[in-house]
Amino acid sequence: MKAVCLLSGGLDSATCLAYARREGFECYALSFDYGQRHHVELEAARKVAQALGAADHRVARIDLRIFGHSALTDNIAVPKGRDEAAMNREIPVTYVPARNTIFLSFALAWAEVLEANDIFIGVNALDYSGYPDCRPEFIEAFERMSNLATKSGVEGRTRIRIRTPLIQLSKADIVRLGRDLNVPFELTHSCYDPDASGRPCGACDSCLLRAKGFREAGIADGACA
Amino acid sequence: MKAVCLLSGGLDSATCLAYARREGFECYALSFDYGQRHHVELEAARKVAQALGAADHRVARIDLRIFGHSALTDNIAVPKGRDEAAMNREIPVTYVPARNTIFLSFALAWAEVLEANDIFIGVNALDYSGYPDCRPEFIEAFERMSNLATKSGVEGRTRIRIRTPLIQLSKADIVRLGRDLNVPFELTHSCYDPDASGRPCGACDSCLLRAKGFREAGIADGACA
Repeated sequence: MKAVCLLSGGLDSATCLAYARREGFECYALSFDYGQRHHVELEAARKVAQALGAADHRVARIDLRIFGHSALTDNIAVPKGRDEAAMNREIPVTYVPARNTIFLSFALAWAEVLEANDIFIGVNALDYSGYPDCRPEFIEAFERMSNLATKSGVEGRTRIRIRTPLIQLSKADIVRLGRDLNVPFELTHSCYDPDASGRPCGACDSCLLRAKGFREAGIADGACA
Repeated sequence: MKAVCLLSGGLDSATCLAYARREGFECYALSFDYGQRHHVELEAARKVAQALGAADHRVARIDLRIFGHSALTDNIAVPKGRDEAAMNREIPVTYVPARNTIFLSFALAWAEVLEANDIFIGVNALDYSGYPDCRPEFIEAFERMSNLATKSGVEGRTRIRIRTPLIQLSKADIVRLGRDLNVPFELTHSCYDPDASGRPCGACDSCLLRAKGFREAGIADGACA
């Protein structure tokens, strides 16, 4: 059974890939070079895919910078030290417009070519840092659309499922699940604003959520030296 | 009022752009360099955008060849001389997996950055050459998903509409509409398999549907010399 697994190289997508592998899927990992300001996470994705035994790993080059407007692709400062109330209240400038929609669309194209029914994405609706395209209602609407978009859907041969095993988990739950699945935490990369040598900043939303997750799970984070 | 208009450089998308302009929209035309085997259509898109007074025209580079599996991106022969029954019965090898899903996802990203509510796409459900992602039910599902995917949707500021003015028109109707809107037919390009100098083959599905449209509308096609 084949599945396409979106893989950013972060903690969540790595755990999601490990989960799909444990479910018995032959995993086709898909990452994106979308003009993000740093490439550390693509290197992390490559190592994680290999460590977790993905059948294939491809990097799709797409230029989201032509539309601009995100701290992850433009020269806008990544916000630091936000508390959880702020994260839950405001959609941050690190939001890349329609990013998960675009990522899932590419995954759908590959799934169709592979004749895979399952697409795994490590989105999370609890500690989600305020992104609209991480919510269950978005995922359900995307799945519904997928089954109308594709040749296999029209011919009734397959039914595409967008699988989100982490969607209702807290960051601490994800860390515990990752540990149980032997996710190589030390290879993953979460920071939105690493330094030149790839070390995490420790203060962006992503670093803060990660640290909180490990702290609450009572597990040491191998990646934060 | 701003709108994002998908523009391939063909007859349908050019007519769709002209329609949006007549409706009073400030049009942001979006084309894709998706590894198609020929670039004649991108050149056509550039000229059409200019001729029809688009406010901006961008070409997003995305590599759909990494997934393979289409006569439009691979070295698979484009079928020639198919009759209409065959076109309506089978999804052809020129189908690019999830293409319209991917194109609309990018349009959604740009719409969000521009704070535009309207996205125009020249899909057509009658003479549609058998593509699943040209059907009204697909478009409706995409629109529904869009309003859950975006910051503006979540904040209730805007409502994204996917506009498909050609969806119920025959090719002849599109030709008549294009004429009434002064679409520069001679600048448009429809062929899936042009020769080295960009001349249409006259025998692929797209050329046959175009010729039929002009014939039934009783109008001469300036582009087919």
